[in-house]
Amino acid sequence: MSFEKEIASHFTNGHELYLRNISVDCVIFGFHQNELKVLLLQAKYAGIWALPGGFILKDEHMDEAAKRILKNRTGLNNIFMQQFHVFSNPGRSTKAINQQFLKNVGIEMKESWMFERFVTVGYTALVDFTKVEPIPDVFSAASEWHHLQSLPEMILDHRNILDTALQQLRTNLNYHPVGYNLLPEKFTMPELQILYETILNRKLDRRNFQRKIIGTKILKKLDETKKGVAHKAPNYYQFDLKNYKRALQGGLGFQLS
Amino acid sequence: MSFEKEIASHFTNGHELYLRNISVDCVIFGFHQNELKVLLLQAKYAGIWALPGGFILKDEHMDEAAKRILKNRTGLNNIFMQQFHVFSNPGRSTKAINQQFLKNVGIEMKESWMFERFVTVGYTALVDFTKVEPIPDVFSAASEWHHLQSLPEMILDHRNILDTALQQLRTNLNYHPVGYNLLPEKFTMPELQILYETILNRKLDRRNFQRKIIGTKILKKLDETKKGVAHKAPNYYQFDLKNYKRALQGGLGFQLS
Repeated sequence: MSFEKEIASHFTNGHELYLRNISVDCVIFGFHQNELKVLLLQAKYAGIWALPGGFILKDEHMDEAAKRILKNRTGLNNIFMQQFHVFSNPGRSTKAINQQFLKNVGIEMKESWMFERFVTVGYTALVDFTKVEPIPDVFSAASEWHHLQSLPEMILDHRNILDTALQQLRTNLNYHPVGYNLLPEKFTMPELQILYETILNRKLDRRNFQRKIIGTKILKKLDETKKGVAHKAPNYYQFDLKNYKRALQGGLGFQLS
Repeated sequence: MSFEKEIASHFTNGHELYLRNISVDCVIFGFHQNELKVLLLQAKYAGIWALPGGFILKDEHMDEAAKRILKNRTGLNNIFMQQFHVFSNPGRSTKAINQQFLKNVGIEMKESWMFERFVTVGYTALVDFTKVEPIPDVFSAASEWHHLQSLPEMILDHRNILDTALQQLRTNLNYHPVGYNLLPEKFTMPELQILYETILNRKLDRRNFQRKIIGTKILKKLDETKKGVAHKAPNYYQFDLKNYKRALQGGLGFQLS
């Protein structure tokens, strides 16, 4: 099917395949060696960028839809994503954007399910961005990791969705462990601190951080130091996976039992 | 408009007013003097119970829809509710239930937007149940507070939605303060502990609870004891609202800054 035919069919008949009025958008944060990035797609015909998003098939679980969308639109596979917030401002109309898109493709259409209002469910994940290679699909001109400090212009309320996800990621550092799959199996306390500082985008007090993170019991201190560093060789740690997983579930905080 | 006409109109033309394929369900927990309850509606013609729920108007924010639904269906007003999870199992079909309902009302209908699949967004709140008086609307035969230990049979996946909300309420005790608007302005440590024990449905160690809750800094100890109790008069406390609100936002736990 040609690109134009595929687009026309989606706008004319998509509502026979997908649920109406509800969509999914994915905020995929990538971390590697002191850099935090987010994955964005650039729509064909438009310079503007968007979160990878799409629709829920009529017989599909929303979590499966999020996975399918991410895989189809970026090439990323086997990413564990969590729903984090539903965005339902009645002003978030996709009508004008979709009409302009059709015009650019050279299609005229008066009515479409794609001109209706969409409530969108935000999904988020934090991955090692070197382990995945984004591939744009037929609807997108590019699929790229962007630095959070230099974001391009984004469509609709996607900047707000991204900011909300980032805020929740930062707040979640107070409740939940982070770092597994992002750090090497053995890591030093300064390396762990830099992960937190990169996500929070600010410096933390070294002693305070060390005291608190050790207090959470998610770390095991290894009987081994990092070689080849200039000053006092720092100790290696690894995650205590039993405690790490328990804290993922029940939280790091004020445990009553 | 008669009840039958109202129902027929809703099933025939409701999709002109409301978004399709997406609904809202409210889990309202009520606490008062060592009792935790949940608010349920009993559908007309059916003995079975349901969470108060409904649909989003085409130009309405979902949060406003949740408030409107709760007010219309229960008489509860000015309740701060939070979305907590989206339920999207493709097996949660409302078709059979809605067809049976129509049959009971005496209406025959082959097609309706109400027979389609709905993804539902769960909202939750915790209120003092003596401060609100639920009133059933035209669709419901009763609107009542139910003990969590003796729940009636519930429609669809509403029991799962309720269980998920309860699980989150319990987990949130580890992250966020609770009790403001549920306890009197001045309260004793045993009274606060009983609130936690009631929500968790298990006993907590007295010393451990006291040490941890004081460590959160959400309490102010008053220079005043409770009179007229048998043994050693317990001290009064009140919430430190500044710290309480900060912890509502940022969490009780592992504060890095």
